Amino acid sequence: MANKKKSTQISEIGEFGLIERLKKKIKKNNNLIIKGIGDDSAVIPSPKNKEILISTDILIEGVHFDTTYMSLSHIGYKSVIVNLSDIYAMNAEPSQITVSLGISNNYTVEDVESLYAGINKAAENYKINIVGGDISGSYNGLVININAMGFQNKNKIVYRDGANEGDLIVVSGDLGSSFLGLKILQREKMVLTEHKIPNLAINEIEGKFEEYKYLIERQIKPEAKSAVMNYFKEKNIKPTSMIDISDGLKSDLDHISKASGLGYKIMESRIPIHQQTKNASLDFNINHVSAALFGGEDYELLFTINPKERGLVENIEGLSIIGELVKDERSKLIIKDNGDQAAMNHQGWDHFNTN
Amino acid sequence: MANKKKSTQISEIGEFGLIERLKKKIKKNNNLIIKGIGDDSAVIPSPKNKEILISTDILIEGVHFDTTYMSLSHIGYKSVIVNLSDIYAMNAEPSQITVSLGISNNYTVEDVESLYAGINKAAENYKINIVGGDISGSYNGLVININAMGFQNKNKIVYRDGANEGDLIVVSGDLGSSFLGLKILQREKMVLTEHKIPNLAINEIEGKFEEYKYLIERQIKPEAKSAVMNYFKEKNIKPTSMIDISDGLKSDLDHISKASGLGYKIMESRIPIHQQTKNASLDFNINHVSAALFGGEDYELLFTINPKERGLVENIEGLSIIGELVKDERSKLIIKDNGDQAAMNHQGWDHFNTN
Repeated sequence: MANKKKSTQISEIGEFGLIERLKKKIKKNNNLIIKGIGDDSAVIPSPKNKEILISTDILIEGVHFDTTYMSLSHIGYKSVIVNLSDIYAMNAEPSQITVSLGISNNYTVEDVESLYAGINKAAENYKINIVGGDISGSYNGLVININAMGFQNKNKIVYRDGANEGDLIVVSGDLGSSFLGLKILQREKMVLTEHKIPNLAINEIEGKFEEYKYLIERQIKPEAKSAVMNYFKEKNIKPTSMIDISDGLKSDLDHISKASGLGYKIMESRIPIHQQTKNASLDFNINHVSAALFGGEDYELLFTINPKERGLVENIEGLSIIGELVKDERSKLIIKDNGDQAAMNHQGWDHFNTN
Repeated sequence: MANKKKSTQISEIGEFGLIERLKKKIKKNNNLIIKGIGDDSAVIPSPKNKEILISTDILIEGVHFDTTYMSLSHIGYKSVIVNLSDIYAMNAEPSQITVSLGISNNYTVEDVESLYAGINKAAENYKINIVGGDISGSYNGLVININAMGFQNKNKIVYRDGANEGDLIVVSGDLGSSFLGLKILQREKMVLTEHKIPNLAINEIEGKFEEYKYLIERQIKPEAKSAVMNYFKEKNIKPTSMIDISDGLKSDLDHISKASGLGYKIMESRIPIHQQTKNASLDFNINHVSAALFGGEDYELLFTINPKERGLVENIEGLSIIGELVKDERSKLIIKDNGDQAAMNHQGWDHFNTN
């Protein structure tokens, strides 16, 4: 890693020395901790009348992220967010994470601290405690595994399989922007590679991309949708099913569809798409609806609610009713802007990939 | 991976197809599960009056294991054990794990199933539920991250920092055997590499190593010390401090020493060492006491108890009183067989490494 600052080899301070240094910067962001880093296991108080939620995600360099256009602190931040998003998607509040790292052999102590700065920042923003972890060397690039835990009353937990026929399909935020952000960064990387400028950090790219700043931010610094869960709490809404959109609207809607044994009908015009996503789609000769349907990494919440509760989600900023669930599980329809109906099948993917 | 059986490419069935296949073989091994694999998070019932313990370990190919002499099912088994061991070391019973895998691109579905067969076997043996996980491709070898969870009454949890001056130091089982097992496997690998026999599976090695079978088994199929925890329960013993021996007796005793602010005095003759460890140490020109002190991967329990409870641990098969804690934290002594006292310092490590 290019680094003008002080550069300390991990071997100089050892694994335990590194853990000590990282530990000092970890704050206590909530009271749900008895024993954090420094024993064989973390100990967490068990909240009364609430069940335990746990999710885990592994992120591997070259598969999930590219250090060419993402800074280590952004990678750290995003690794936490993708896990918190899984807990929010159960209608629960995350409260702890553990962090396992496989550190590339060429990383310095300062590199690991940069990565951890992003992890700490996310933990602080979402009031999460980092209660434990593990650090190892890795011969082949950075590996990050994060587990998130949360708690919720049994009757408030929302699964994928609770949707009913006629339920409204709702999404938060907008879709496809993270995917376009990635396309822009990948294009830039290609240009840079041709010009042989190695390891360009995101802050150097940023200036050039004022036009698509929102898209790049959605890709490199996504946020989990805690506000949506807070809105549910405030209005006493319990979705009938919920999932976070990590693989793309189509794929994640299919998970709800399969788990609940229902089909769906969505309206193309109702899919929330940001203006920058539309503009960038033109640049890349991509259909912006395809970007929203198949793009992935939005980390928005996709949920279904009883149609009687329409008033609670209609005309609410940041929420869009995009369709409804239908009886026949095989029926997966999209209503085009011109009124035509089209079946949503796997050709969607193929179509997308050939663009 | 050499495989004479049916070979299915992961791309043929996809990530979701792979998860479906693995899911079918996962058994329910206890009742502490509400929702397992198949939603954004797992949901676990929160036991009354018990706190939550969580530990995590990342295992990376080339750092923690070598597929040349360890079968994938053994790697899977061991990955679970090292995590369960961390929960037992808190005087608690593990009940759930989550499993994250980074799968080498050349692995077949059957390879992943072999790995999972070991994971399932360990889960079954220790009555653990596999409640969640994540699977990703990996460009650079296998990565396994496992989290173990368990529950225990607050007043029964044992930390590293509770030891008192004069407490007895006790270890379970024997030490150094796993390290010697590793040396034997590494030597064999070297011989094989010179003779260009690639990817030798452990079952092919086994025949040649009847003499050191115990040592090899300790390395490739370690067990967590659930029996020790059950004995504590039966006799109503609460150790004052505890840790599992993963880094070696010296290093892990230092953790207790540092956390509790005490020194220690151990007797060389009381360190439990298996006859095969002694024999193999001669072969490798290693001091067998050094192997026990610095070898690591024993996954035995190291704990301290009040001297009044001596009778409960003395002359018990599988437990050895090896010394006691002393007031001065800087005092770390080993009493040699001839009565000489020697300071245990970091030279021990250096000495060991030059062998």
